[in-house]
Amino acid sequence: MRLSAGLVYPPPMDGSWAGDLVRVGGDARQRFHDARAYGRPDGSGLLLAPVEAAHLLFRGDLEAVDGDGFAAFLERQPEAVGAGFLAYADLRERGYYLAPAREGWVADPPPVADFAVFPRGSGPGENGVAHWLRVVGERESVAAATLGDVDLGVVDEEGEVTYFETGRPEPTGEPLAAPPAARGTLLADRVVVWDPAPSLYGELFFGQPLAGRAGDPAGPVQLSLVEAAHLATTGALELAGGAAAVSERGRAVEGDRFDRRLTAYAALRSAGVVPKTGFKFGADFRTYVDVESVSSLGHSVALVRVLPADATVSPRELSLDVRLAGGVRKRYWYALVEGDAVRWLEVGRLTP
Amino acid sequence: MRLSAGLVYPPPMDGSWAGDLVRVGGDARQRFHDARAYGRPDGSGLLLAPVEAAHLLFRGDLEAVDGDGFAAFLERQPEAVGAGFLAYADLRERGYYLAPAREGWVADPPPVADFAVFPRGSGPGENGVAHWLRVVGERESVAAATLGDVDLGVVDEEGEVTYFETGRPEPTGEPLAAPPAARGTLLADRVVVWDPAPSLYGELFFGQPLAGRAGDPAGPVQLSLVEAAHLATTGALELAGGAAAVSERGRAVEGDRFDRRLTAYAALRSAGVVPKTGFKFGADFRTYVDVESVSSLGHSVALVRVLPADATVSPRELSLDVRLAGGVRKRYWYALVEGDAVRWLEVGRLTP
Repeated sequence: MRLSAGLVYPPPMDGSWAGDLVRVGGDARQRFHDARAYGRPDGSGLLLAPVEAAHLLFRGDLEAVDGDGFAAFLERQPEAVGAGFLAYADLRERGYYLAPAREGWVADPPPVADFAVFPRGSGPGENGVAHWLRVVGERESVAAATLGDVDLGVVDEEGEVTYFETGRPEPTGEPLAAPPAARGTLLADRVVVWDPAPSLYGELFFGQPLAGRAGDPAGPVQLSLVEAAHLATTGALELAGGAAAVSERGRAVEGDRFDRRLTAYAALRSAGVVPKTGFKFGADFRTYVDVESVSSLGHSVALVRVLPADATVSPRELSLDVRLAGGVRKRYWYALVEGDAVRWLEVGRLTP
Repeated sequence: MRLSAGLVYPPPMDGSWAGDLVRVGGDARQRFHDARAYGRPDGSGLLLAPVEAAHLLFRGDLEAVDGDGFAAFLERQPEAVGAGFLAYADLRERGYYLAPAREGWVADPPPVADFAVFPRGSGPGENGVAHWLRVVGERESVAAATLGDVDLGVVDEEGEVTYFETGRPEPTGEPLAAPPAARGTLLADRVVVWDPAPSLYGELFFGQPLAGRAGDPAGPVQLSLVEAAHLATTGALELAGGAAAVSERGRAVEGDRFDRRLTAYAALRSAGVVPKTGFKFGADFRTYVDVESVSSLGHSVALVRVLPADATVSPRELSLDVRLAGGVRKRYWYALVEGDAVRWLEVGRLTP
């Protein structure tokens, strides 16, 4: 398909509703579809999705649809001025061609996609699809499990669009050594190992010296409940009541969230990734890979938020997480946990 | 009071429980109180709060309390290894003297304070109190209304302490001109003004050009529901159904949150501060002061989250907000709204 800007401005045309589409005759197919990738050819005419018709009305290329100009068109179907139209107009303005992800209009659209966005400057059928895009308003919750295959455009209350790239990461690091045997005491919401092997903290980065900076790096180590439950479950930590006592305490202070965090923690450790608390970032964990010693940790590359597999996320919360992660040069991973299974979702900023 | 480091290390002493305090005799008063600001003199002896006794046991200055060494002391009352002790030890290590904020131990403690922290290097009674500090574990919710007079130390699950400064800001900017009269149409979750006076957007920064960057800055303006409700309430915006129709739509999409946001929005505008959406920062608003024209906006200095006056906040959420704000060089204000009244709370990072 050859896409070219016209050198003359022909007069605007009229369209008319045909079911839930807008039909335009005359030379619309050549002017709008062949040259600018709007709509779907229908004989000698052109069928437009409402968002495409709205955009052509907005641009002045269409005069009216069944007598409605742009304002009347929007007022009669206000959803067209909502999320879809604003993202469509924004991406067109940024130099992208995009097509509604309707069955029969583009090949194999993912079920939750609203648009196929083609590589900048390319039309449909030229260089594949750059982004399958789902568009929502900032107040719509999104099921986390539906992300990963589509990117997300969020239209905020003022009509501005923020884009998020989503994917399915595979956390991976160098395999970690088995932890040394330890004996601990459950104290309120942590476990103290009074006489740890130096490698427990120093090489495997379990726990922190008791009393933090005031503590002795070779002295007692305090473990978080999730660290302690993991070590007790794998048999490395002995304590009164065993792993069950730690998990029971964890559930008492965190509810179901504790088991989900423990599952995500174990999945990361077994992938060679060391999770530590993400509290300073408002996350569940920050992560380190290729850990050989606490004194030579690399930059923590990812933050992790743990969610139930069926969780919905609010775009505003996503925006907060992703903006924060960008500011500290980290990726943001969501661990979607169901029973012992973890599916990983990554969300990042996308600046089209 | 003269505070000096001892040049010799006298042998550790023993203490014994006296009610909920620990009494130490001998030269404890001179060694621990006069020289290092622990406890409260009691005749020739010294009374210590449990957290102080735990710290002296941890340091090896006390040998035992009724036979319990540090480990046994903590195991017998595990709350002492919790939030309070870890923050106490951390601040001592950083060079601060601090005292439990108990009635009779320090003057006029705010009701929710746990510690009086004195200026670094100063003892009690020398240079006043640098911080009234409340200490919580990361899993404890905090009533927002109790902040503002105390700073907050949060002990995370790994025992590390993060500090937050809190205060009561007064948002203030140059008075804003009255908005021009406008006529709008409610479309889904926004209002479009088809033919606005240029000052509506260009000088007073209401709304955005319809379709954002694709739009015409001198053309139609889209207002958020909160902007439209504010303008309609003040009489500047006419539309079918009036302010009530906009607020009704706002409540339909946001619930009670809409009215709270409208109250905070109005309070900011009447203080000469222009609120715009804070979506990109996961906040309710970002704010501008001294706005003369959209083309010459200064740096937005504060993010705003709107909460009910009786809201509790989780330390992890606070941590996320404050960390984000630090990364973008903004302050974080919480608008605590009850009816038409707004109390402002500011929370920032504190690095002692």
